Amino acid sequence: MAATRKETDSMGEIDVPASRYWGAQTQRSIENFPIGVARFKWQPPIIAALGILKKAAAQANAELGELPADIADLVVKAADEVIDGRLDDEFPLVVFQTGSGTQSNMNANEVIANRAIELAGGERGSKKPVHPNDHVNRGQSSNDTFPTAMHIAVAQELARKLFPSVGKLRHTLAGKAEQFDGIVKTGRTHLQDATPITLGQEIGGWVAQIDFALDGIQSDLPGIYDLAIGGTAVGTGLNSHPRFGDTAAGRIAQITGLPFRSADNKFFALSAHDALVNLSASLRTLAGALMKMANDVRWLASGPRCGIGELAIPDNEPGSSIMPGKVNPTQCEAMTMVCVQVFGNDAATAFAGTQGNFQLNVYKPVMVHNVLESIELLSDACLAFNDHCAVGIEPNRERIAENLEKNLMLVTALNRHIGYDKAAAIAKKAQKEQTTLRAAALALGHVTAEQYDAWIVPIDMTHPG
Amino acid sequence: MAATRKETDSMGEIDVPASRYWGAQTQRSIENFPIGVARFKWQPPIIAALGILKKAAAQANAELGELPADIADLVVKAADEVIDGRLDDEFPLVVFQTGSGTQSNMNANEVIANRAIELAGGERGSKKPVHPNDHVNRGQSSNDTFPTAMHIAVAQELARKLFPSVGKLRHTLAGKAEQFDGIVKTGRTHLQDATPITLGQEIGGWVAQIDFALDGIQSDLPGIYDLAIGGTAVGTGLNSHPRFGDTAAGRIAQITGLPFRSADNKFFALSAHDALVNLSASLRTLAGALMKMANDVRWLASGPRCGIGELAIPDNEPGSSIMPGKVNPTQCEAMTMVCVQVFGNDAATAFAGTQGNFQLNVYKPVMVHNVLESIELLSDACLAFNDHCAVGIEPNRERIAENLEKNLMLVTALNRHIGYDKAAAIAKKAQKEQTTLRAAALALGHVTAEQYDAWIVPIDMTHPG
Amino acid sequence: MAATRKETDSMGEIDVPASRYWGAQTQRSIENFPIGVARFKWQPPIIAALGILKKAAAQANAELGELPADIADLVVKAADEVIDGRLDDEFPLVVFQTGSGTQSNMNANEVIANRAIELAGGERGSKKPVHPNDHVNRGQSSNDTFPTAMHIAVAQELARKLFPSVGKLRHTLAGKAEQFDGIVKTGRTHLQDATPITLGQEIGGWVAQIDFALDGIQSDLPGIYDLAIGGTAVGTGLNSHPRFGDTAAGRIAQITGLPFRSADNKFFALSAHDALVNLSASLRTLAGALMKMANDVRWLASGPRCGIGELAIPDNEPGSSIMPGKVNPTQCEAMTMVCVQVFGNDAATAFAGTQGNFQLNVYKPVMVHNVLESIELLSDACLAFNDHCAVGIEPNRERIAENLEKNLMLVTALNRHIGYDKAAAIAKKAQKEQTTLRAAALALGHVTAEQYDAWIVPIDMTHPG
Amino acid sequence: MAATRKETDSMGEIDVPASRYWGAQTQRSIENFPIGVARFKWQPPIIAALGILKKAAAQANAELGELPADIADLVVKAADEVIDGRLDDEFPLVVFQTGSGTQSNMNANEVIANRAIELAGGERGSKKPVHPNDHVNRGQSSNDTFPTAMHIAVAQELARKLFPSVGKLRHTLAGKAEQFDGIVKTGRTHLQDATPITLGQEIGGWVAQIDFALDGIQSDLPGIYDLAIGGTAVGTGLNSHPRFGDTAAGRIAQITGLPFRSADNKFFALSAHDALVNLSASLRTLAGALMKMANDVRWLASGPRCGIGELAIPDNEPGSSIMPGKVNPTQCEAMTMVCVQVFGNDAATAFAGTQGNFQLNVYKPVMVHNVLESIELLSDACLAFNDHCAVGIEPNRERIAENLEKNLMLVTALNRHIGYDKAAAIAKKAQKEQTTLRAAALALGHVTAEQYDAWIVPIDMTHPG
Repeated sequence: MAATRKETDSMGEIDVPASRYWGAQTQRSIENFPIGVARFKWQPPIIAALGILKKAAAQANAELGELPADIADLVVKAADEVIDGRLDDEFPLVVFQTGSGTQSNMNANEVIANRAIELAGGERGSKKPVHPNDHVNRGQSSNDTFPTAMHIAVAQELARKLFPSVGKLRHTLAGKAEQFDGIVKTGRTHLQDATPITLGQEIGGWVAQIDFALDGIQSDLPGIYDLAIGGTAVGTGLNSHPRFGDTAAGRIAQITGLPFRSADNKFFALSAHDALVNLSASLRTLAGALMKMANDVRWLASGPRCGIGELAIPDNEPGSSIMPGKVNPTQCEAMTMVCVQVFGNDAATAFAGTQGNFQLNVYKPVMVHNVLESIELLSDACLAFNDHCAVGIEPNRERIAENLEKNLMLVTALNRHIGYDKAAAIAKKAQKEQTTLRAAALALGHVTAEQYDAWIVPIDMTHPG
Repeated sequence: MAATRKETDSMGEIDVPASRYWGAQTQRSIENFPIGVARFKWQPPIIAALGILKKAAAQANAELGELPADIADLVVKAADEVIDGRLDDEFPLVVFQTGSGTQSNMNANEVIANRAIELAGGERGSKKPVHPNDHVNRGQSSNDTFPTAMHIAVAQELARKLFPSVGKLRHTLAGKAEQFDGIVKTGRTHLQDATPITLGQEIGGWVAQIDFALDGIQSDLPGIYDLAIGGTAVGTGLNSHPRFGDTAAGRIAQITGLPFRSADNKFFALSAHDALVNLSASLRTLAGALMKMANDVRWLASGPRCGIGELAIPDNEPGSSIMPGKVNPTQCEAMTMVCVQVFGNDAATAFAGTQGNFQLNVYKPVMVHNVLESIELLSDACLAFNDHCAVGIEPNRERIAENLEKNLMLVTALNRHIGYDKAAAIAKKAQKEQTTLRAAALALGHVTAEQYDAWIVPIDMTHPG
Repeated sequence: MAATRKETDSMGEIDVPASRYWGAQTQRSIENFPIGVARFKWQPPIIAALGILKKAAAQANAELGELPADIADLVVKAADEVIDGRLDDEFPLVVFQTGSGTQSNMNANEVIANRAIELAGGERGSKKPVHPNDHVNRGQSSNDTFPTAMHIAVAQELARKLFPSVGKLRHTLAGKAEQFDGIVKTGRTHLQDATPITLGQEIGGWVAQIDFALDGIQSDLPGIYDLAIGGTAVGTGLNSHPRFGDTAAGRIAQITGLPFRSADNKFFALSAHDALVNLSASLRTLAGALMKMANDVRWLASGPRCGIGELAIPDNEPGSSIMPGKVNPTQCEAMTMVCVQVFGNDAATAFAGTQGNFQLNVYKPVMVHNVLESIELLSDACLAFNDHCAVGIEPNRERIAENLEKNLMLVTALNRHIGYDKAAAIAKKAQKEQTTLRAAALALGHVTAEQYDAWIVPIDMTHPG
Repeated sequence: MAATRKETDSMGEIDVPASRYWGAQTQRSIENFPIGVARFKWQPPIIAALGILKKAAAQANAELGELPADIADLVVKAADEVIDGRLDDEFPLVVFQTGSGTQSNMNANEVIANRAIELAGGERGSKKPVHPNDHVNRGQSSNDTFPTAMHIAVAQELARKLFPSVGKLRHTLAGKAEQFDGIVKTGRTHLQDATPITLGQEIGGWVAQIDFALDGIQSDLPGIYDLAIGGTAVGTGLNSHPRFGDTAAGRIAQITGLPFRSADNKFFALSAHDALVNLSASLRTLAGALMKMANDVRWLASGPRCGIGELAIPDNEPGSSIMPGKVNPTQCEAMTMVCVQVFGNDAATAFAGTQGNFQLNVYKPVMVHNVLESIELLSDACLAFNDHCAVGIEPNRERIAENLEKNLMLVTALNRHIGYDKAAAIAKKAQKEQTTLRAAALALGHVTAEQYDAWIVPIDMTHPG
């Protein structure tokens, strides 16, 4: 068998590896865009999304009488193989190609057409009985299909990866918050000792922040569920059946189980991707929440002897190639590195989002790439952090008690009884003379011993009222 | 009268200008933080928000029996003057101070206390009968008051400035979209000629994008309406009445007419300001939408003779100090400069948002500063753009018609009749030979003249189906 | 006297306040760009730079025979008043105007022309004997003058403000590094106890980082010293004398004492401002260095009792409105807030820097605004931090000694004698059993007491070899 | 043969695939950090850099008497295989691991030790005769080795990839600038018609901007050539020979042919990576330059009929899946997408650069990852853009001439003769009445026909003087 076959497109003929399903335009893109080839080929989420889209489009076209049933069936069968990941190797293109994703849309059209041709007993490259443009791309343009695939991929990855992974970590932390609610400890503001809180309250603050971030992502979903399909080249829907957008979106919803719908304004859906920009920002907010949590964990676990040392975290691996016995908060480090990456990805996404002109934004591939990368990294990092750190967080009760005992800010409870100014004098005296708060309070005569002991009760300070 | 008087705080005495209401801590901050003094003093929105907060707190404390009615009345009277802007000059502090905003909270406490003392016939600096900490700051900490003031200021500026200003521009554009819906013109994708759209559709895409951005801001409002008040120092509410948070938030809602409420988790409300981070991101999305619109406007108005020239915009001022008669799209330039500033402000806000530790995020002032600046700039720029550009946008009908006439992408309408490949051949022949599309189509014999004229009807291509 | 007079430009007549020197184009800009008026009027550095430029241009034109000596003299006299700040109130325009800065260039032309006319006994607005365009703007365009003024302003502010201020802080820290070089303390990596260093080494690391950042800024200066002047409208120099660029740049160098020169490629000098982008990035690196330093300071000073507590910093003001006696690292907080602002400013600058088209980048004002703001804030923050924090940094020798004593990572010195694996076993045993390292080492029998005492000498571990 | 063998580290035993060279710590990292595994494994540049470092360290230790010659030889031999890429599959770890890169340093130590053991006829995992810590990591810590490898990798990729690739594009553009220097065309500022330039000048502006960006990168190299090696755990050099840093750096210079040296301040070299932050910023500036150039190219090539259309660029592939015959500026799109990615990578890098604490910055892996990705993408994109776009750029002389002919801003040449105000009147009249400039000039009587023809000579306007 020959190593190559001829494929054609409107530019003419080109040699394609005989073993491949892809056609002329995919081959041209391989040759024209050798950019970041080792790491920037499209990953399965986008490939599957293109498969879903092409399947739904064929079904919709058949339903609307735009495609013969037998052709549609062939397209659906081939698209199913794309969805299942069986043809992942047939998608060799990278992110940095044409900014509309045209070449990846054509990659899908070509692979599905040739696979469908093969299923029908035809010859690859013959475009018969299934033509990549006239049949697989029927009623479509890259300008509406690629953003549709972007939304499908993102919505699926959120549902499959992000929500479960972050949810698992959130669940672990919420359990810890409940478990440690009776542990009273020093609060800290400005890194300085402050009035007491419980460890449960402290961890509960992290949970609330993560919940807020997840709510933000949820509120972006309606925008993600709005699909460009039906807009074709410039948003007018030229060459598609008037009901094609709605019908195809319905099919996509059916295939994925997610509430996709046809976007109200297709001109906006092609020329901007602000639903992705908003989602990227919400992922950034989640990254910020996780960064704050991970930083708190590592600071509270700092030491073991010369830091704060109020938390113990799992020892997972030797921490140093030179310092024997050292253990480091490595899961916190991986997590916070993921967070800064998400910030970078968001910066790229939002910048790209501003650069649309007229009827098209031609930064589509780089936008969805960054959003998908952020989803994947946050999901993976939350799982790793959960399994190798969060589940093993334990209080160092001895250190916590010791720190609480000597905390001067317990004096705050006296404000209501003796006023801010006298309370301040007590704290300052204790710090200056390195005595206990109680000793300073009694020495100044602002309270009696009985009053002191009645008014300064750390646990009461954590749940006033 | 002496130029200065003595004021005291827990650090001791300090000279304060006799004519001023502020006290010791404000004075210390003036001396310790001479950073960006010419441009970074707090603007009225934050000052008024502190006044609203202090008024509401006094009312709530009085209602809950935490403050004598006469003291509360004095505080309310003085706070009303702060709200009305009469005491703006008494707020000399800058953004770059302590990261909790403590000094601005104390500035409000001191000014209100001294003004209240004066109203009561007392002596400034005497702390009698109104003490800045024990009365004005009753049941509060900077850690919950300052973020509360941040949210009040932001919510009010959105309501007062942003929504009306952007709404006005949106209304003008929507009017233009309707007005120009009958004008068929060349669509453009990848900056290249594409299938036709109407000018109304083009402008309608901008409107839809702005609407989406405004929806995003709306969806952030619940987070902004959640107030930290009641959390005091670390979120436990120590030293405040158990119902203080709810009661004070209710009063704030009453004063402002906005649906503020007490936040569910005060630990989160002090240690992170993700509602502001989300809002900042939504303002960034709005900036992106406005940037895309303004770029489209200036490109469509480019020329007057050697550009696209399909739109005319108002000539507001001479465009060049050297090129006589030149007119430039200056409102677009001001708008897009505002947009990049909003991007920068957002980067600062989001970065700051990640840097909380334990029970406090100490980047509060810089966060609210950037969000307020973005709100103000976007509001002002939308008004200026509306009044000096958008209202005057007119189509250059002659140029539009000329461009449409020669647009090769009208060929797309033939796809459904003769297939993509033959249609491509027609367009390529016309471009190569610099003929009309019709001439090329007939020469190739793929269509008859009758078919061509029946199938290629630009206006039909803009509203298919 | 009438409240207004008529001024004219190529658009026609317009009323201008009679008391003002500015003319028609300034007035139009005031009316067309009411954006951020309270905070975004140009500050003195840009106004003075425009004055310097206009003075130098008049001198150069006179020297080259392009302007009569008497006209040039009048322009120089008026420009001197601009340079001296006497006419600051005559510059009412804001950053968010036309993206070339044309209106501010014309503001300078108009003010100087009218002031020169007045000096010559003429009538404001008459354009006789000094015309704003034909004389003050002689041989110039906004497109080359405004970027020239940008570079002048930035270079001067670096020289006047940034280098002295950062240098002062650097000097203080270097002194502290020297002063505390004998203090051996626990090193920390991953926030975990590590092998010892001296406090001098620790502070010396900050100094080296600041020095590196300053070197980076220095390496950007040649680009800043390259001036666009002589390029006029599009870079060709049309309407200027062939030697005008060189001559004017020479005059600017003379006036400022800084080595300005005429840029080699004027097309680049108008269409991009990458020297400012690079400088903005170098300011960002400086901000990063200052942030790391300030964070180290506040963590080392954390406590006073439940943190690391190895450094004492000045108590400048009460730290809390609710917690009596609390002292916070407020200078660190102001500094780090400045740093995130600089990051935001840099993001805006770099974004703007990408958006040039053809012969012009029309984001000039927003770029120079952000760079100047960063310079000012960093300068002010370094001075405040120096005066109110750095000069007062003192070691807490007791805590340092205590932390060093119990630091398990002293074990690292045994690697060379007994190997990593046995050393690790010692550290792990000591931590597990909460004993001293020495006890664990002897218990395991890997070293004798004599060996332990000879090999584990913390001060030797800080200066090996 | 068993599928696994036991490897040990200070945490105990763990199963490792028998076929692999890596040891216990690598295996733990695989299990603990399943984050972004498909795309974030270290690429060859970092792996080779670790090999170079380990080879140089062994040579230096041998030279300084710290390692027996035979052990050193074994290490060198194994390291050479790492350098050559023969052991790439033995480096399975990802970017998101511990923030010091310890696990990748240990991965190198383990692989080299086991391969060296094998070369010596020993048993993998036996640590005899070559121990991963005591021999391969001799005198080193991850804290100095990993940043050393970061600098080696970055410097090599700049030399191997970036400079040649960008240089090639720069060369092509410089050739075009020279080739088209005689073509006079319309200049454009504010997107509006401006005074003429030559196409050579326009392209020359791009070249100057790229040159400036390359100079910026060059000026960062000294910082990249400074190596942390010799600092060991915290910067003091504990456990390394006093001359180890210098000697090892010398060996690295020898191996790579690049002027590496030992950094002056090792505390800075471990706790911050500002040389990478600066380089990242310089890559961002390069991205900005390329973005401006690519945008100019696609706008100048816009059309083909309804845009500016002054340049023709190669037709590389069909542009649209729905619009037959459409050709798009796809290389410009890939390039600008790369540019926004570089902006995102830079944001991540700079953010990470600020987050060091005490003696270590634990964002090392994410920093070098982003810098290397930017280098690779820029290099690849420049090559693709060069080969598939820049080399084929051609002027559309007819359109250029037509646009120049009708350009009203030719009037600027009259300023010097009749003054700005009269020149403005001519341009405005011509535009209002849609006549030629000449007709309007003569009609107004400001010039004679002879004067007009003598004064308005476009080519003279491009090279005045």
